[in-house]
Amino acid sequence: MSKLPADRYFDPDPAQKEIAQQLYDQVAKLPLICPHGHVDPRLFADPNYDFGSPADLLIIPDHYVFRMLYSQGIPLERLGVPRRDGGEVERDPRKIWQLFGENFYLFRGTPTGIWLRDELAEIFGIEEKLTGESASRIYDQIAACLDSPEFRPRTLYERFNIEALSTTDAATDTLEHHQALRASGWKGRIIPTFRPDAVVNLGTQNWRENIDKLSQVSGIQVNDYRAFVQALESRRAFFKTMGATATDHAALTAYTEELSDADAILQRALRGQATADDAVRFTGHMLIEFARMSTEDNLVMQFHVGSYRNHNAALFDRFGADKGADIPIQSEFTRNLRPLLNKFGSDPRLTLILFTLDEATYSRELAPLAGHYPALKLGPPWWFFDSFNGMRRYFDLDMETAGLYNTTGFNDDTRAFPSIPARHDLWRRVAANWIAGLVVRHIVDENDAAEMIHAAAYDLAKKAYKL
Amino acid sequence: MSKLPADRYFDPDPAQKEIAQQLYDQVAKLPLICPHGHVDPRLFADPNYDFGSPADLLIIPDHYVFRMLYSQGIPLERLGVPRRDGGEVERDPRKIWQLFGENFYLFRGTPTGIWLRDELAEIFGIEEKLTGESASRIYDQIAACLDSPEFRPRTLYERFNIEALSTTDAATDTLEHHQALRASGWKGRIIPTFRPDAVVNLGTQNWRENIDKLSQVSGIQVNDYRAFVQALESRRAFFKTMGATATDHAALTAYTEELSDADAILQRALRGQATADDAVRFTGHMLIEFARMSTEDNLVMQFHVGSYRNHNAALFDRFGADKGADIPIQSEFTRNLRPLLNKFGSDPRLTLILFTLDEATYSRELAPLAGHYPALKLGPPWWFFDSFNGMRRYFDLDMETAGLYNTTGFNDDTRAFPSIPARHDLWRRVAANWIAGLVVRHIVDENDAAEMIHAAAYDLAKKAYKL
Amino acid sequence: MSKLPADRYFDPDPAQKEIAQQLYDQVAKLPLICPHGHVDPRLFADPNYDFGSPADLLIIPDHYVFRMLYSQGIPLERLGVPRRDGGEVERDPRKIWQLFGENFYLFRGTPTGIWLRDELAEIFGIEEKLTGESASRIYDQIAACLDSPEFRPRTLYERFNIEALSTTDAATDTLEHHQALRASGWKGRIIPTFRPDAVVNLGTQNWRENIDKLSQVSGIQVNDYRAFVQALESRRAFFKTMGATATDHAALTAYTEELSDADAILQRALRGQATADDAVRFTGHMLIEFARMSTEDNLVMQFHVGSYRNHNAALFDRFGADKGADIPIQSEFTRNLRPLLNKFGSDPRLTLILFTLDEATYSRELAPLAGHYPALKLGPPWWFFDSFNGMRRYFDLDMETAGLYNTTGFNDDTRAFPSIPARHDLWRRVAANWIAGLVVRHIVDENDAAEMIHAAAYDLAKKAYKL
Repeated sequence: MSKLPADRYFDPDPAQKEIAQQLYDQVAKLPLICPHGHVDPRLFADPNYDFGSPADLLIIPDHYVFRMLYSQGIPLERLGVPRRDGGEVERDPRKIWQLFGENFYLFRGTPTGIWLRDELAEIFGIEEKLTGESASRIYDQIAACLDSPEFRPRTLYERFNIEALSTTDAATDTLEHHQALRASGWKGRIIPTFRPDAVVNLGTQNWRENIDKLSQVSGIQVNDYRAFVQALESRRAFFKTMGATATDHAALTAYTEELSDADAILQRALRGQATADDAVRFTGHMLIEFARMSTEDNLVMQFHVGSYRNHNAALFDRFGADKGADIPIQSEFTRNLRPLLNKFGSDPRLTLILFTLDEATYSRELAPLAGHYPALKLGPPWWFFDSFNGMRRYFDLDMETAGLYNTTGFNDDTRAFPSIPARHDLWRRVAANWIAGLVVRHIVDENDAAEMIHAAAYDLAKKAYKL
Repeated sequence: MSKLPADRYFDPDPAQKEIAQQLYDQVAKLPLICPHGHVDPRLFADPNYDFGSPADLLIIPDHYVFRMLYSQGIPLERLGVPRRDGGEVERDPRKIWQLFGENFYLFRGTPTGIWLRDELAEIFGIEEKLTGESASRIYDQIAACLDSPEFRPRTLYERFNIEALSTTDAATDTLEHHQALRASGWKGRIIPTFRPDAVVNLGTQNWRENIDKLSQVSGIQVNDYRAFVQALESRRAFFKTMGATATDHAALTAYTEELSDADAILQRALRGQATADDAVRFTGHMLIEFARMSTEDNLVMQFHVGSYRNHNAALFDRFGADKGADIPIQSEFTRNLRPLLNKFGSDPRLTLILFTLDEATYSRELAPLAGHYPALKLGPPWWFFDSFNGMRRYFDLDMETAGLYNTTGFNDDTRAFPSIPARHDLWRRVAANWIAGLVVRHIVDENDAAEMIHAAAYDLAKKAYKL
Repeated sequence: MSKLPADRYFDPDPAQKEIAQQLYDQVAKLPLICPHGHVDPRLFADPNYDFGSPADLLIIPDHYVFRMLYSQGIPLERLGVPRRDGGEVERDPRKIWQLFGENFYLFRGTPTGIWLRDELAEIFGIEEKLTGESASRIYDQIAACLDSPEFRPRTLYERFNIEALSTTDAATDTLEHHQALRASGWKGRIIPTFRPDAVVNLGTQNWRENIDKLSQVSGIQVNDYRAFVQALESRRAFFKTMGATATDHAALTAYTEELSDADAILQRALRGQATADDAVRFTGHMLIEFARMSTEDNLVMQFHVGSYRNHNAALFDRFGADKGADIPIQSEFTRNLRPLLNKFGSDPRLTLILFTLDEATYSRELAPLAGHYPALKLGPPWWFFDSFNGMRRYFDLDMETAGLYNTTGFNDDTRAFPSIPARHDLWRRVAANWIAGLVVRHIVDENDAAEMIHAAAYDLAKKAYKL
């Protein structure tokens, strides 16, 4: 039984709140569709997987958490984030947790604050507020939970009522954990997603090694563009046999261009002579090539645009990637995507799901594009915008022009497995509140509303990702 | 008697809703000022004009409608949209309507959904919801209406209580329908708007033919820049004699620049040798030239910026322009308009009304510019933003800085004549709700509010467009 | 006793309003922290400073006021704004006031309208609404107040309960008024802010003269880059002795770059040969240099980005700078600030407070940057966005990602001294309403809310500016 207020995240007007509550109640217990995220498949491959300490579970791997602490001057070393050089960092999880508790007030009004509060209450049964004073007691409660068999990932997967969960995996990944998982006979549906960025982006650190690995795992010697494409197609086929229904692609910009000299660029790259411009053009070309592959193998294509990675160079040197220093840039889709959309945007075999970090593109570009091209769908609000207000702006700015049915429901996009129910719950509540707002204004009626909340909470994600 | 809820589109808070209702009631029956739109003047030239079937009226010509259906994979051929090559398309209006009814759920929460619902209820007296099941009955009801003399356009014009309606007409148009209309003695005020894009934009398809037509209709041989300007001035004078009070200009960007080599560019264009850069610069120059003409002939100058036309090349080839594939791009006004504004922005004879498809420019550029330059006024939310949320954002983002009195009320901007009352009604309701929000927060008092809603609903448009 | 409604600016929902009122009441009487603004220090240097007429106080110096009147075609001459050439302008303050009263309706729904209404009521005890009809009576009431000793600036400073007020002063300023003020023994805390733009921006009118003045006041002959830096450091040290805790910097863009040829550029500038590109690069370099200085002398660094100054060239020629014709442009921070942030963004000695005029950068760039870099904090909504809706958007767009504790409370940023209480009051009310919105949605609890409103109203500004 939840201790959290039943009407949380709904607008205060009583008429709207009542309808929002009714709509939410209709979908609150639907299974969770998790078609995009970064949960480690090892959690499920090993039936006895142990999350470690509360700090190992909730702080050390979560860049949403430690970026905020870092912004207030707390070094990552004190939070136990491992250094690349193996240098000294805090190893006492209780100390890390205490520091977190003392600074938990920093998360007031943030999505991380909401998720953690809800997760502690709903998953771990914590009834008190996290502060410096309560931190130690809460630590003990969480640790006791984590020791119990009910907190093995497979058991939580079932408790969370997850219907399918996609991981995100390199093109060169052998998917051994997915294989082990399947071999184990466990019934959970954990499926891989094909993400080839590390072999496509010529500027990736260790790109040459990644290509060698691609040659090795595909059995196709990647020494020209044709072989490169064949190797990628072969890997996609393998991912499909492992249950994949989707691919994922990320780029700094949405630039696409069909090249006549793709092979020449790849050859330069193989000789270590590719330029930055080569890399941009090659990525733009490969996006069209991947769209073509999707029309043939039916894998849904996801495209995440606009994150300037590793903005803080010193932090990257010390701790590596994904440490909370990825900052959005302004994005452009109308002109950049035109070559791809003119070739495949009306092809009924393609589903292309777009994600942006520039909310100015919602109403200006993405919603008009999604409201026209059959292949195009809008992904849910991403990253910084996977938040209470971020969702409200998404509904406000996208839905009138794109139409609900050109969107794809929710992605939790998280590596923090126990936060998944809290994230979906926030989405379902904010969606219910949005639709209730349409009902009280007589924009849609209650029958429409019931179908809309079911779509937003469940159907759209399942259909878009072919799950 | 309307079957629609009297309080539709108002915020749910009872205090705000009551004030919104009172404000709305004060203006609900004011005549409609329609100073910008795309209704075909033939509707009024022929007293017995027949709208055709429900599909001919409401689906086939409305790109708002069929773009959404297309986005879900329904070919335009099945919707009866005529092909350029005369190829086969669906000709049975009842089949088209049935397909529309089955997919009408796609419009939930969209402005098109609102307009159509309201229009069907208020104009055609339809009491049931449009679905696949009801489609055929509703078709019959609409068809019966359209057969009756009450549904001739002139009769509807009077029923709609329209005070003035502007069409949009090419500079080379002889305005024969406007002439017939005037000759008929009918009292409706249908006036043309001078839109010279097709002779100004050197990159227009058939530009050379358009110039020849300009020479022909003006009687001025356009063989150099001076003659070009004279021909345009002559056409403006003719449009004025036909009742025009405004011109309209569209460009991809707001770029303006006063050229010293305008004649050289025009000469190159006449020889078929103009470059893309020539076209951009010539358009930028002509905007300043048109502002100059407006200071002399007092025609109000409208400027619509930021639509990337015919984004879907294959669709354009098959069906032509205005088929729902025009996508906004990012816009810039501060630097681009400076040459024009420095020359004419403080001239009391000029009224320049701006329209944007990039909402990021509302608070950043357009409101500050309109809150300074005497000549500048902001047009209402345009196209994708002519919507419930689009209007709310417009009020939110523009009004504090621009001030209500530097805006110009509402434009319906539609070619769908019977949707006009629904569109104005939505504007009046959302405006009333916005002003009620100011009243309940004690930002303005009820006397201010009464004047503001009258201005937003009627006065501002009438004054800005000199109607 | 205020005649204004006690619940003004709160949302209408009764539950939210009650909580907003409670939160507001907790901070309504806290002292005002005014860490950034443009009040003239002469007001306080002279204990008998006389504001002049109501027009001198409230209209002639306030570009927020006269830009709106100008936008409706009222020449600045009629408002008494002095011409550069000394030409004729209206000199009768009562006539100016009358014109203002007749046009005060233009400010409906604008922040200027709110401030003036509140200021007239709270400071001058005006109970009737300003119109053409009431203007003369209100003029008399204000004039009577201004004649009384209670309306000397020092007395108002105490009545307003100001704890500290920063002025903004050129690097070359001798701070004589600040010196007189200190010598007078008056206890008010009026402190200068070091703003070196006029010697840093090589394109400034009279830059060369400013450099000569810098040499003179610093006693360091600025003939190369090293001397330039020393002179600036010397001035900063002097400002510190006068109580300064902060510097202020403005630039058209956020571009930063560490130059190896700074001296060569400065030398070119000293010879009158600097290019526009030199100026951009030199400003970008100096921003990093100033960040370095701040790490050494602990002065808080403010950076205001994105105002295109003096957009209306004719107006600038006639009346000079700061006449309501400064228009925002699109801004970029992620890439532009990276050189500075990579060098000093994680330095615990630096506080860098950013201000933007491009709200699209709030959620896209500024909040993510402030939510990561320890040195970075977000300034309050600036200029056009220092408004009811501007504040709401700021809370909506920034707080979830940046976190409240990476923001810096409120700046009134005004030259209109008597408007200060009204401006802070609006902020405190909108902040209370925002937090109440979180409480009614169960995002934060009432204890959190109490700490958050205290932080937003008082603590954050005091701490960020080291006051």
